[in-house]
Amino acid sequence: MEQLFVIKIGGNVIDDPEKLQDFLHTFARVKGKKILVHGGGKIATKIGHGLGIEPNYHQGRRITDDKTIDLVTMVYGGLVNKKIVASLQALNENAIGLTGADGNVLPAVRRPVKEIDFGWVGDIQESQVNTALLSALLQQNITPVFAALTHDSQGHILNTNADTIASVLAVALSKHYDVRLIYCFEKKGVLLDVEDDHSVIHRIDPPLYQQLLAEKKLFEGIIPKIDNAFAAIGSGVKEVLIGDSQDLAANTTPEITGTLIIY
Amino acid sequence: MEQLFVIKIGGNVIDDPEKLQDFLHTFARVKGKKILVHGGGKIATKIGHGLGIEPNYHQGRRITDDKTIDLVTMVYGGLVNKKIVASLQALNENAIGLTGADGNVLPAVRRPVKEIDFGWVGDIQESQVNTALLSALLQQNITPVFAALTHDSQGHILNTNADTIASVLAVALSKHYDVRLIYCFEKKGVLLDVEDDHSVIHRIDPPLYQQLLAEKKLFEGIIPKIDNAFAAIGSGVKEVLIGDSQDLAANTTPEITGTLIIY
Repeated sequence: MEQLFVIKIGGNVIDDPEKLQDFLHTFARVKGKKILVHGGGKIATKIGHGLGIEPNYHQGRRITDDKTIDLVTMVYGGLVNKKIVASLQALNENAIGLTGADGNVLPAVRRPVKEIDFGWVGDIQESQVNTALLSALLQQNITPVFAALTHDSQGHILNTNADTIASVLAVALSKHYDVRLIYCFEKKGVLLDVEDDHSVIHRIDPPLYQQLLAEKKLFEGIIPKIDNAFAAIGSGVKEVLIGDSQDLAANTTPEITGTLIIY
Repeated sequence: MEQLFVIKIGGNVIDDPEKLQDFLHTFARVKGKKILVHGGGKIATKIGHGLGIEPNYHQGRRITDDKTIDLVTMVYGGLVNKKIVASLQALNENAIGLTGADGNVLPAVRRPVKEIDFGWVGDIQESQVNTALLSALLQQNITPVFAALTHDSQGHILNTNADTIASVLAVALSKHYDVRLIYCFEKKGVLLDVEDDHSVIHRIDPPLYQQLLAEKKLFEGIIPKIDNAFAAIGSGVKEVLIGDSQDLAANTTPEITGTLIIY
């Protein structure tokens, strides 16, 4: 099967115009089929502040209320997404900006209210992904660029975690492609010593992971990422890579600088 | 050739949530291929006001400065466009939201500076339209929904008149489809008596137009619309209809209530 890269970038790239442009230059030069998924970064908070929309928390969990979903629809789906698309077009990368509502690519279910009503937040499943449209776009050498938004099929846009969107797209498309799912974050990869960028573990398989867990050698926050990576691999994704956005060129080749998670 | 409707709605529909929902219900029931083009309405001005971005005029002409292009990219390309797409999905209409940057569908040229620098405003030509992607989407029964934004192929989004986008799309696609271009506005059609909705002229051809002009029977503001309609027809569009957004059901059949402009 043909290779497909599903690449997720977060706020640390989106919020830094120079880092974003550097990343997009590298992204445009990556050969082959690819999909970009972006979060929103701090710009939504900043614009929301200007409009008198303050982040809304309940028991420490962020709530997407009516004003907030409009805000993120504007900022993630409009400002951030279209600027990325226009930048990629200037780099001769034929990008198309999408939310899950566009072409019904990612229908979601509004998260059921249990202890907390998270508001306009959507949960997604790989079985619901409209892979036909995505495959048709990829075959036309058009690169989908996803904002972290889905819809409830009842007329509402939903806020959805960008990591989850990347993972669900990767799993759904693994039936048609050899997918490498790449999570870009602020570190070189999974580090043995969180202070030392040279301590990247370049390859983690289940036995090594169990050993690292037993030896308590993994820094805080990385364990859920690795768990999610193994879940994606268990569902058909060929490999998951965790690395620095600035190392994308290497991390889309066999000479990786980040951490490859495989069975 | 198969029929295609290219339908433009403006601020009078966008700014009125009830009118917009009524319109989208009717739009979703229109049989056959269709494209929607929307302007932005007053919501951009309102949100801009909240953010301290006031409309910028020079010699009476509106200027799209740096802050304004970001504002309209957010509001037209994000908030308005994605809400329309989500609403159409709820009505089982498989819509996809686009700007001219997406899939490079509408590359533009930033308007050259002569007496006035209009800022981030784009001019477009039918020969530049990427009809391959649009035709592919239409063949998959996906309905493009355009925000009135294009791009300069150098990384910038450009503000572009929605009437012009509708006309340029209609002309470019007239090679592949029998296109009826429908301009929705606040009146039933071209009226002989501007105060009387029953005075619609249902059909205007060039001889009648010359006669109406000579007799000074056309109300102010409608003449450029009719001139643009004849220009579109002269460039291959089969027919142009000017009518009320609330009459879309009739105006997409032979039993029109608006004004059909034909050769």
